[in-house]
Amino acid sequence: MTRTCDFGRIFNPESVAIVGVSPNPGFGFGRGMFYSILEMGFAGRMYPVGPKGGTIEDLKIYKTVDEIPEEIDFAVIAVAAHRVPEALEACRKKGAAGAEILSSGFSEMETPEGIALEEEIKRIARKGIRIIGPNCFGIYCPESGLTLLPGPDLSRERGPVAFLSQSGGMSIDFAHIGKWMGVGFSKVVSFGNGADLRESELLEYLRDDSDTGVITMYVEGVENGRDFFDVLRNTAGRKPVIVYKGGLSDSGGRAVASHTASMGGSGVIWGSALRQCNAVQVGGIMEMAQTSLAFSLLPHKIYKGIAVMGGGGALGVNACDIAEPLGLEIPRLKKETENRIISILPRPGSSAGNPIDVANPFVHPQILKETLLLAAGDEKIDLQIMIQLLYHYKAFARGLGADSLRDVVPCNELADGVKEVVDITGKPVIMVLPNIKQEIESMDIEEVMREARKAFLDRGIPVFDDIADALKAVSRVSGYCRRRHRIS
Amino acid sequence: MTRTCDFGRIFNPESVAIVGVSPNPGFGFGRGMFYSILEMGFAGRMYPVGPKGGTIEDLKIYKTVDEIPEEIDFAVIAVAAHRVPEALEACRKKGAAGAEILSSGFSEMETPEGIALEEEIKRIARKGIRIIGPNCFGIYCPESGLTLLPGPDLSRERGPVAFLSQSGGMSIDFAHIGKWMGVGFSKVVSFGNGADLRESELLEYLRDDSDTGVITMYVEGVENGRDFFDVLRNTAGRKPVIVYKGGLSDSGGRAVASHTASMGGSGVIWGSALRQCNAVQVGGIMEMAQTSLAFSLLPHKIYKGIAVMGGGGALGVNACDIAEPLGLEIPRLKKETENRIISILPRPGSSAGNPIDVANPFVHPQILKETLLLAAGDEKIDLQIMIQLLYHYKAFARGLGADSLRDVVPCNELADGVKEVVDITGKPVIMVLPNIKQEIESMDIEEVMREARKAFLDRGIPVFDDIADALKAVSRVSGYCRRRHRIS
Repeated sequence: MTRTCDFGRIFNPESVAIVGVSPNPGFGFGRGMFYSILEMGFAGRMYPVGPKGGTIEDLKIYKTVDEIPEEIDFAVIAVAAHRVPEALEACRKKGAAGAEILSSGFSEMETPEGIALEEEIKRIARKGIRIIGPNCFGIYCPESGLTLLPGPDLSRERGPVAFLSQSGGMSIDFAHIGKWMGVGFSKVVSFGNGADLRESELLEYLRDDSDTGVITMYVEGVENGRDFFDVLRNTAGRKPVIVYKGGLSDSGGRAVASHTASMGGSGVIWGSALRQCNAVQVGGIMEMAQTSLAFSLLPHKIYKGIAVMGGGGALGVNACDIAEPLGLEIPRLKKETENRIISILPRPGSSAGNPIDVANPFVHPQILKETLLLAAGDEKIDLQIMIQLLYHYKAFARGLGADSLRDVVPCNELADGVKEVVDITGKPVIMVLPNIKQEIESMDIEEVMREARKAFLDRGIPVFDDIADALKAVSRVSGYCRRRHRIS
Repeated sequence: MTRTCDFGRIFNPESVAIVGVSPNPGFGFGRGMFYSILEMGFAGRMYPVGPKGGTIEDLKIYKTVDEIPEEIDFAVIAVAAHRVPEALEACRKKGAAGAEILSSGFSEMETPEGIALEEEIKRIARKGIRIIGPNCFGIYCPESGLTLLPGPDLSRERGPVAFLSQSGGMSIDFAHIGKWMGVGFSKVVSFGNGADLRESELLEYLRDDSDTGVITMYVEGVENGRDFFDVLRNTAGRKPVIVYKGGLSDSGGRAVASHTASMGGSGVIWGSALRQCNAVQVGGIMEMAQTSLAFSLLPHKIYKGIAVMGGGGALGVNACDIAEPLGLEIPRLKKETENRIISILPRPGSSAGNPIDVANPFVHPQILKETLLLAAGDEKIDLQIMIQLLYHYKAFARGLGADSLRDVVPCNELADGVKEVVDITGKPVIMVLPNIKQEIESMDIEEVMREARKAFLDRGIPVFDDIADALKAVSRVSGYCRRRHRIS
């Protein structure tokens, strides 16, 4: 890790060559990337390159990289594997700080030719150009407008979460999930085979990157375990690092070998090493996204006592049963608080011992807000979770003869109320918005749910589909902070 | 359990009294139930009853139950708690075999008045009428058209799954989830406080009910543990019983007390008792629904070797890592099979060692079908899981300049192909259709996903959102069959 890397020119290039662009419509990766970067609104200069020449969107397609009339900062290489070394060398000569190689056909093929080709590009890299890939989806950076392979529609909104991924599919999926779930990104790097830049060096960079507050990683195998865990321990002492390790089973290990030419490793050893580093281990992409969401929107502190509020007794019971094994408590509120809450809730059917059963899904946002304020007043409560069954409003809308579901669901009022509670009390509130009506005829419910999610996210309130996911994510934040506190 | 119960007249009544119907529009439960049953297309005779008289939808509202001009089979009681005993007694005199009491305000209040009222209705029940409830959402029976409290829009399609629930919210939620997830119901009973009919007697009835092939239960507490576990063991020897026990934590136990006046109990004791009965324990409503789906659509047998197929290497790795701890294997296919599969898949990027990476999400349904046929030919494979990332077709549709996403996603072709594979090979195929693009702008993807789900379900192919859920459900079916085999 002694080689230099000008990450600034790689993530925020002013000029980019896209090598492998055909003038003819079709599904070539190079054309796809050209259009994707264009649609993302990349502000720098783009130089498409392809042997046939021609034009694309009124831009000249250069026949070779040499012909580009200026130095380039970064290159996207999407040509057949055997033509990659030549293209890479040309980009190096044009002064590029780095290149992402989207092409596959390298060491992941487990063939002598593939392995030799990868060695060849490594040799070129050592002469001064840094490589992302090969066999990857590249870089997504909302700040500059660089985007992943099939990603013309990723968000330009920046956020605190960085993601390093050996898997291209995982990188694009997480970037898409983040868009609606409310996870904003600083930098996403799909590095595939990791012939040059990979986990340890990228992690070290992100540790010191002031735009990154939370780091997530999908790892299939690491190049140098000792280096990696050194950097990981060191980084996790500064900011949370969420690690999703794939290939921990026997067959999973076999699968990673043919996917990114990595060694899987033992689940027990990885689990223990990650714990020692105070990394946060997750087991799937949705869990990774939910954990990132919690780390980006909740203050990093220890949470113990949770108030849970919703319409429906079984939901509260479920919350308790899930919370306790996670080390979270749903403590009984002070009798006085309980009485004050019960006095404002509809009767019968409500109860306020915590979990708080508000009796029905149509309780006025003002009452819900007061309930949250009262519960937050109990010193045992560190955080509140409100479950809203918005789908019940469909029957409500019918009863009222309303034209549209949107007219009756008080999304913004609810979201404003919750935001005020957080501002006043300083105690976070998490929303849980399940949707159990997913039939084709209920697309209107889905639409309202998505708008509701956005309304809360716009006010910095995290939203989960499911109480179990919400509690698990809170326990992750709390556990990380407890261990960091203990270690330091 | 020696009292008689005419379940036939309760689930499939020819005449029903609905007590507590006001002639004035509003949100009364009685009116709501009247309209719900009407909209469900109940074929029997309905007799609305309310002290104000008047009419509703051209039907006379009788001022008292006595005035109804014939004997009734069943009654829905939705009046204030203190007026329930009188109404119940009147229904008994009118010959009703049973009544569901939707009203709350009984023992769950933990007040002397509430407890006394519940004792009073129990006394009336002992004179010959059976009670569902109080504090419940009643009965849903697709065959007859009876429906739960806020359930005018439940499915009339029958299926093999019965559900017994102490929680009303859980009953309506599961009934709604079943509608789109593909879980069809024989009978759903929300019995709330369970003053009369409850878990053991209902379970015994369902054990012998030929319309019911899979039983699910949400239990907060049982009246008589010994009776319950006797019936449960006996029933689980005949058909699968899926049990979701709520209130196993300290705070959860407190919550069930105020919800349905039940005792929670220890998680360890419940877990071990359920295992001894070979009941299938689940920990949440979605898990319960997914497990029911697997038990209703998969042959009840032991599954060991799974073939996993999808576009994207990390998905396969993830599947392996989840499968192994569940006791499932993703075994390497015979070299010959592997070679034949690889010869028909796009290159590079594909691999066929199992998991099978088909390289991209747009592989033609015919190729996918052939791949499934080839993999099923390996004797190590008992079941196949195909992951389809349909959301990627959005970019594909743009590339083609297609008007609508629906025009390019080959749902029916895929579903036909999969169905043929199952028919030819006799080995089940499960579809996994994740949707990672849930932003407001991608409602078209959601719509196509829902249509795809329906296309597969119409052909008897189970669909899950997530590979982890699918594998867990398979392991549940397999584990139940293994233990039953061992016990018998």
